[in-house]
Amino acid sequence: MSGDFDKAIAVFTLASGAAAVNYDVNIFFTFWGLNSIKKKKGRAFLGKGLLAPVFNFLLGGRKNLPLSRLNFGGASPLLMTGLMKKRNVATLEELFQASIDLGVNFYACEMAMHVLGLTKDDFIPEIKDVLGVATFLKLSQGGQTLFI
Amino acid sequence: MSGDFDKAIAVFTLASGAAAVNYDVNIFFTFWGLNSIKKKKGRAFLGKGLLAPVFNFLLGGRKNLPLSRLNFGGASPLLMTGLMKKRNVATLEELFQASIDLGVNFYACEMAMHVLGLTKDDFIPEIKDVLGVATFLKLSQGGQTLFI
Amino acid sequence: MSGDFDKAIAVFTLASGAAAVNYDVNIFFTFWGLNSIKKKKGRAFLGKGLLAPVFNFLLGGRKNLPLSRLNFGGASPLLMTGLMKKRNVATLEELFQASIDLGVNFYACEMAMHVLGLTKDDFIPEIKDVLGVATFLKLSQGGQTLFI
Repeated sequence: MSGDFDKAIAVFTLASGAAAVNYDVNIFFTFWGLNSIKKKKGRAFLGKGLLAPVFNFLLGGRKNLPLSRLNFGGASPLLMTGLMKKRNVATLEELFQASIDLGVNFYACEMAMHVLGLTKDDFIPEIKDVLGVATFLKLSQGGQTLFI
Repeated sequence: MSGDFDKAIAVFTLASGAAAVNYDVNIFFTFWGLNSIKKKKGRAFLGKGLLAPVFNFLLGGRKNLPLSRLNFGGASPLLMTGLMKKRNVATLEELFQASIDLGVNFYACEMAMHVLGLTKDDFIPEIKDVLGVATFLKLSQGGQTLFI
Repeated sequence: MSGDFDKAIAVFTLASGAAAVNYDVNIFFTFWGLNSIKKKKGRAFLGKGLLAPVFNFLLGGRKNLPLSRLNFGGASPLLMTGLMKKRNVATLEELFQASIDLGVNFYACEMAMHVLGLTKDDFIPEIKDVLGVATFLKLSQGGQTLFI
């Protein structure tokens, strides 16, 4: 659910790490989290009105996620990515790609998409399906679910 | 635990969705989260002192929860609720009521209430019980617990 | 993962409460959460550069965690601790110590330490081990995991 840079790193580190040791991994993206799976060039929607800044944030895409604290107007995530490269640690983009390559299933939240006026076309093609909460609960049965 | 508007929507969407497909659902409200189950007309407590603003926040009730980001002084939750109505998606109030109607169990955190000087009378009558963490852990045994 | 004062209270309340009723409890500290297990007198690292404020925050230690909202420049956690003492509720320090005394296992995240240039010496001696995500997933198998 969170659209924070550091929490997105946590999501894709856990997902790729779990998939690498053969867990079946499903991620349910909702609300701010939909930002992580937007196409690079999103379309403008709800173009005007008071809520536009809220929703246009969701158009920013994975490259513009803020740090959950000490964001410094977006400088920290850039510097953090630089540091991760320098230390030879996988960056957010690499963890994201590894999750896809290792077969992690990506699902988009039907209700959040409906509220925000988004369609499946607004997301990267790797999205497996658009789901409601009840269907996702079924998928997670017998496993563990983390809310991030 | 969180008192954010968007996270409260997540809580009651998950709770009502799970209860609708016959899961046994328990919610443990603590700290900022107690705001969701306060009576509409709360009493003033700890009336003065430096911490009053912190605790009076808890008196605001479910109608005044802020958005976790881009809150705009409370405008965003109002606009969001308007948009949810327009899109025919259940609002926070409706999800909350659905959770109650579908038999979700609400518990209030004993320790947080003690620290904040709250009693069971400060909460809506639908609260099933006041619990400590150990008792709640027992309730969640064999299931899944999400920290929101 | 979170370095908030109130979330740290949640972590150590849950951990000590669960350990008290004989659960096997493991905490995996990562990113901002590493702040909770730093030695009181941390060393300065990455001494200059734009990211220094971010990383030096991690040197603040458990005594300087901010409240997740209404922090008032650090006043709220101090006042909250005073109130917890007055109400005879365990403070963060006491919950932390209880977790150690009751045998909760503390693990530090290998990747976050590597990115931040930290070594095991920067942490309290009670840290059981430095782990990667895959190893921690193995430890949590058959149990429940909360992301806080």
